[in-house]
Amino acid sequence: MKHKVKRGKMVNGFDPSQADKLDDATRAVVQRRAQLLGPAYRLFYQNPVKFVRGRGVHLYDDRGNEYLDAYNNVVSIGHANARVNQAISNQLEALCTHTRYLQDGILDFAEQLLATFEDPISHAMFTCTGSEANDLAMRIAMFRTGKRGIIVTSEAYHGNSHLTASFSPSMGENSPLGGSVRRVPAPDSYRRDIASLGQAMAAQVQEQIDDLHRSGEGLAAFVCDSLFSSDGLFCEPSDLLRPVAAVVRKAGGLFVADEVQCGFGRSGTHMWGYQRHGIIPDIVTMGKPMGNGYPVAGIAVRPDVVEEFGHAMRYFNTFGGNTVAMAAAKATLDVIQDEGLIENANMVGSYILGRLKDIQTRHEIIGDVRGVGLYFGVEIVADRATRTADSDRTRAIVNAMRERRVLISATGSNANNLKIRPPLIFTLADADRLIQELEAVVELV
Amino acid sequence: MKHKVKRGKMVNGFDPSQADKLDDATRAVVQRRAQLLGPAYRLFYQNPVKFVRGRGVHLYDDRGNEYLDAYNNVVSIGHANARVNQAISNQLEALCTHTRYLQDGILDFAEQLLATFEDPISHAMFTCTGSEANDLAMRIAMFRTGKRGIIVTSEAYHGNSHLTASFSPSMGENSPLGGSVRRVPAPDSYRRDIASLGQAMAAQVQEQIDDLHRSGEGLAAFVCDSLFSSDGLFCEPSDLLRPVAAVVRKAGGLFVADEVQCGFGRSGTHMWGYQRHGIIPDIVTMGKPMGNGYPVAGIAVRPDVVEEFGHAMRYFNTFGGNTVAMAAAKATLDVIQDEGLIENANMVGSYILGRLKDIQTRHEIIGDVRGVGLYFGVEIVADRATRTADSDRTRAIVNAMRERRVLISATGSNANNLKIRPPLIFTLADADRLIQELEAVVELV
Repeated sequence: MKHKVKRGKMVNGFDPSQADKLDDATRAVVQRRAQLLGPAYRLFYQNPVKFVRGRGVHLYDDRGNEYLDAYNNVVSIGHANARVNQAISNQLEALCTHTRYLQDGILDFAEQLLATFEDPISHAMFTCTGSEANDLAMRIAMFRTGKRGIIVTSEAYHGNSHLTASFSPSMGENSPLGGSVRRVPAPDSYRRDIASLGQAMAAQVQEQIDDLHRSGEGLAAFVCDSLFSSDGLFCEPSDLLRPVAAVVRKAGGLFVADEVQCGFGRSGTHMWGYQRHGIIPDIVTMGKPMGNGYPVAGIAVRPDVVEEFGHAMRYFNTFGGNTVAMAAAKATLDVIQDEGLIENANMVGSYILGRLKDIQTRHEIIGDVRGVGLYFGVEIVADRATRTADSDRTRAIVNAMRERRVLISATGSNANNLKIRPPLIFTLADADRLIQELEAVVELV
Repeated sequence: MKHKVKRGKMVNGFDPSQADKLDDATRAVVQRRAQLLGPAYRLFYQNPVKFVRGRGVHLYDDRGNEYLDAYNNVVSIGHANARVNQAISNQLEALCTHTRYLQDGILDFAEQLLATFEDPISHAMFTCTGSEANDLAMRIAMFRTGKRGIIVTSEAYHGNSHLTASFSPSMGENSPLGGSVRRVPAPDSYRRDIASLGQAMAAQVQEQIDDLHRSGEGLAAFVCDSLFSSDGLFCEPSDLLRPVAAVVRKAGGLFVADEVQCGFGRSGTHMWGYQRHGIIPDIVTMGKPMGNGYPVAGIAVRPDVVEEFGHAMRYFNTFGGNTVAMAAAKATLDVIQDEGLIENANMVGSYILGRLKDIQTRHEIIGDVRGVGLYFGVEIVADRATRTADSDRTRAIVNAMRERRVLISATGSNANNLKIRPPLIFTLADADRLIQELEAVVELV
């Protein structure tokens, strides 16, 4: 079939035109998948993997091979965590029902969750996915401000719903952005002056605010992931967002912190990524690791922001906040807090960061190493002087790591950032294996 | 606090201004809930219930009282179904991961699911919620047609995302409809000539298509729940949608069947509600009962409809189609098929319908009884001659039933339809208890 546009891009996506290179069994599953699920699904790696089992930091393929998982942030406290799975099974056995009946479980969890935020953030609302959380946050922001403008970073990803996809430029040029969506460059600490990044970003946001006013849209919200995950992971400087928040508030807009990727301790120093920046958002959205794989997500919000929305409209999400979702989320948060996983992320993360910087000294292709907690971006370049992105080599590294049974991926506007994001339970020994394989691969590509 | 608009309406919603009538324990939980979850959440009943356990068709409150559940369609094969719970627990123990790795489970389930549809519907895509399914369906429809217009019935509900809420007029007048959304009256078989309903609806849809063309929006899709659940449940005539589909197709629009409420055997004669009408939709959306409480939903679609969308854009939903969701959905579908639950819905449903019509002969306030499978609408009127809706008495019946520990609710544009929708495993004995309590209540109100 002839297509009007080029195939939508995806860093580290399997290319079906290369299917003839797969072994027979893999190719058969790939074909069956295309037949049943259609063309919109993408696979990781040039040689896609079929996993059948997970335990802690390990995944096992259908041939019994063990892989070190240094990528999956959903099962943030480890694959098949016993406490979470037991909590889910127990609650399924007791009762699975929705929020239109009274339940203590949702209130106990909301209380525990809200205690991790600063005043005045004191209401929690629950959805099933991060996309739904961001979608709801923007519905509230638009209702609250009476405006429609949304400002995001240039390679942001905030969700797959019609609205959230409209402010997710990382979905690629075929995916339409909304008419009231404006973009600002991500704070690229590798290519720009780090000392002035905050003021520069605030000025760029102000410029887009002015444009939104000029076009009659006005500003509803500035939304960002404080680690700029899909932009390529930029974690420094951590005082960057304070001047940005100031211009957003001055314009009457809301500051929405998308913590779907960077929340729940990922940063190693705080429960929430925005807390590194010393700001307090109007709405915080969360998802992915919240139930360690169970579909649960939500928002935390200042009461004044949601007051009129909640009065005028109801919000009901059939599965959002259901008894089982809350049991899964509570067990996950319990494990993070009881087992000191934020501290572990910090300790093991600092070790990995040091080792990555050490590798960088020996390999010219590593242009930059960035990281915080257990989240790393390693920028692969063709030339250190010009800082030219090398996406082909990036892809080669990711695929070579997969063949050595260590799972990482890639991201960023130039598709040249290794994305390394292990479960929070990663140990120093796991870190050593990751680093050892990575250095071996970097030497070869 | 002073509000600019009236509080958003909800049939059978708890009114917090009446909180002083609650017992101390209930009032305390209601207050704690408002404090933690904020103002957008609504409770059922004037005397909200706190359930702690569910088994089959029964729910149990925190004082040990047993309730007959004749309302909850999510746990469609019964509360705490052992096969589904075991499937979830087993899969959790093995692996919980996403669709970017190869998996047989999702393909086995997709195959089984797609076998319940007619050619050419042969691709399945998975989301977490019915809202996400409808949102995705409309993204595909807009991409496919290059148009934005959406036509729905006047009290339709299709979801809580920004886009789906924009074509869900049942959310009330405070909830903004989209500028390219048009409404047609639901086929009210009680108040209008049943023989001409199909042609009348087709003409009304054509009128809105013309209006969408005139405004430059064009038609992307006509979306409907073939049982018109939130419009008040209209199940006859079942040849209604054929002429509607014809005008939609002629205008180049897609016909989207929202099966979130009426699918998975609810109608008692077919797996999907639209099949009663002898049409084949372009996209079918599904959700609620799909995993018997586990958050899983999705769409089934004609390949040609999604071909260009899938090529140009990827669709990824973190939890959508994950291994556990697929295990839950497969077990649920297995139970529906293996245990003959569609046939049971038909048999027990026909019995209930007969008994409801029998009660109607003795009670003037019952203006109309409608139903198919295990889904019933009972219209409560102040006067049979004028067919004037009696929403106060409807609410009184629903609340009186709750005090007698039988759970039903209410719906419809005039808030005067009892909504009775028991699990598909309802027995004749359960039906007798439902009918007995209902008649007792109707005699008293």
